[in-house]
Amino acid sequence: MPTTALTEIGTLVTNDPDLGVGPLGIRHDAAIVFDGARVVWVGGSADAPAADTGFALAGRAVLPGFVESHAHLVFAGDRAEEFAARMAGQPYAAGGIRTTIAATRAASDEQLAATVRRLLAESLRAGSTTVECKSGYGQTADDELRSVRIAGRYTDEVTLLAAHVPPPEYAGRTDDYVTMVCERMIPRCAPHARWIDVFCEQGAFDRDQAHAVLTAGIAHGLVPRVHGNQLHQGPGVLLAVELGAASVDHVTHVSTADIDALAGSGTVATLLPGADFCTRNSYPDARALLAAGVTVALGADCNPGTSYTTSLPFCIALAVREMHMTPDEAVWAATAGGAKALRRNDIGTLTPGHRADAIALDAPSHLHLAYRPGIALVSHVWRDGILAHSN
Amino acid sequence: MPTTALTEIGTLVTNDPDLGVGPLGIRHDAAIVFDGARVVWVGGSADAPAADTGFALAGRAVLPGFVESHAHLVFAGDRAEEFAARMAGQPYAAGGIRTTIAATRAASDEQLAATVRRLLAESLRAGSTTVECKSGYGQTADDELRSVRIAGRYTDEVTLLAAHVPPPEYAGRTDDYVTMVCERMIPRCAPHARWIDVFCEQGAFDRDQAHAVLTAGIAHGLVPRVHGNQLHQGPGVLLAVELGAASVDHVTHVSTADIDALAGSGTVATLLPGADFCTRNSYPDARALLAAGVTVALGADCNPGTSYTTSLPFCIALAVREMHMTPDEAVWAATAGGAKALRRNDIGTLTPGHRADAIALDAPSHLHLAYRPGIALVSHVWRDGILAHSN
Repeated sequence: MPTTALTEIGTLVTNDPDLGVGPLGIRHDAAIVFDGARVVWVGGSADAPAADTGFALAGRAVLPGFVESHAHLVFAGDRAEEFAARMAGQPYAAGGIRTTIAATRAASDEQLAATVRRLLAESLRAGSTTVECKSGYGQTADDELRSVRIAGRYTDEVTLLAAHVPPPEYAGRTDDYVTMVCERMIPRCAPHARWIDVFCEQGAFDRDQAHAVLTAGIAHGLVPRVHGNQLHQGPGVLLAVELGAASVDHVTHVSTADIDALAGSGTVATLLPGADFCTRNSYPDARALLAAGVTVALGADCNPGTSYTTSLPFCIALAVREMHMTPDEAVWAATAGGAKALRRNDIGTLTPGHRADAIALDAPSHLHLAYRPGIALVSHVWRDGILAHSN
Repeated sequence: MPTTALTEIGTLVTNDPDLGVGPLGIRHDAAIVFDGARVVWVGGSADAPAADTGFALAGRAVLPGFVESHAHLVFAGDRAEEFAARMAGQPYAAGGIRTTIAATRAASDEQLAATVRRLLAESLRAGSTTVECKSGYGQTADDELRSVRIAGRYTDEVTLLAAHVPPPEYAGRTDDYVTMVCERMIPRCAPHARWIDVFCEQGAFDRDQAHAVLTAGIAHGLVPRVHGNQLHQGPGVLLAVELGAASVDHVTHVSTADIDALAGSGTVATLLPGADFCTRNSYPDARALLAAGVTVALGADCNPGTSYTTSLPFCIALAVREMHMTPDEAVWAATAGGAKALRRNDIGTLTPGHRADAIALDAPSHLHLAYRPGIALVSHVWRDGILAHSN
């Protein structure tokens, strides 16, 4: 396989403590070599072996590609007017999702696929080399099936968000909707997805309903993840832990019992500060989660209603400013943390043998991701060892 | 002169109420034609006259280019570590500026110019077609002179920030520094600048010192602008109004008397939410200023200590989220507001006869600048009628 060497790296974040200093495994004046789609060597820039292709990075920082573990990309329409109204004082309620459900149902497959491609390209330019993609704006068996199939054209990390909000035709009959999901939607969609997800929240699905959907998904071979505790305290976190979910996402309104349960579990807390920014919600207490030993990931939660951003650099800046995460913690959460939220051992770190997914910054250090908010700082993106973007 | 037509514009923001709806003069399905460096025609897309060059924008939004009225681009070094420490709890004090003064004095002219070029290019990609540029990290007559000369290579809007912070060699002798500024620095630098600026703040310069610097600048033909009321209530706003400053910038900690004075004046209040974001300061009360009738501009305040961003789209998103400005108010403040802060009648609006400085977005509406935070949404930048950037 052709080899590629990145040399003259000012700051290399490996996320492998065996390869460098601290939890981020940081090296300076470093180099990294890819053989095909894998990392094969990490060391000092002066010691780098010869390679077929070389990038002399003149002191730039290099990091693992961001791992986006929470994205809603299969939809149609936008909700810019709803956003403007909310910013003028109208609070966010889960029902706004129904606007997107109507637009998504009315859209063609090609329209939906074009939106997925557009947002994945945007994600890539911002440094995300792996992107999970949820359905959830169909909420019929047919529309969820086409949503997961469309997502599956572009990513292996497909999530059936079977229960996002009860659709209008099930108004007042949420239990009937859950029955349809468990008996008809999940069996048809499960072959096309890896994950099963549910929005456990007031106005969406309660604990028993969410439990039914997740266990039906598990019975069909899917692994659970949960939208929990976004708008209110609730049962989402404990349900996620009980069912061994890979992650519970949002985690904004939590109790001490929730934090303790997470800390003793294999469930990652995925924080989505873009949503809190765009809804003017409060931010999660990341420091309490980290202090308890909870594994924290950061996601951008791209969706047209409550967080229409694909930028993990923006979320890192918010995590530092608003959640008091250190820049190191935030960078780890958006890379290795995202990989853990997707239960992936091959990404999120630049260890030899792992995937050659990496980014370079127009900056000497990963600190600049928080220090330079709003800047398109990602200068190069390699995915599977191939330069997929540069500017 | 060669003509250029932009057609199929989904939302055109002209900022000219005579050309469209509301204060932003909005038209849909619009076109705009440039003749050389000037706007010559605005109307419906179907009615656009023929032009030498055409851009069919497929529903994109088009706006006046952003007018950045507050940028510190002539410096060396970075303060990423200071930023990380501050985010971990160490408060911001004005003294951090001295770190940059030392690095700037030690840098070569070419190093300083390279930084200016890099940040202006970054600004342009984010849609800023006019950028004011301050000196202020030399704080000797020689170093300020080379700073304004370097800035003047790249912009007409050069500001002599003569009194940014008393430099170390004047420790405890701020009045002596002010005397040097008035007697030696300003006379030498004034021919190379348009504006005189001072940081009127505890730990920097008090009212009398700021007054002395500004009046010396005025005597040498410069027009005043003031950094005021950033960290504490203080005399900056009233001093700016008294001296007829074009703008007073930050305006974070103000009294009712300050607001009343601004409302009755020709002085613009330039809000810099990037600085409040990066220092974890509180945000200005934009609603109180707007309610009183104050003219509000938005700037990014790019500088290596307290706001290392050039992105006015990021500042628009902050203005909406954190200062409760409407997206329309924020967009106006970053375009027409910036022009008023620079006392320019030829930019910030897309009126026939004005400069052909415009941007297109990868979005159908200007609302998306706030609705899509962290995204590099500017797809095209025309400056003086010429396509200066596209992606």
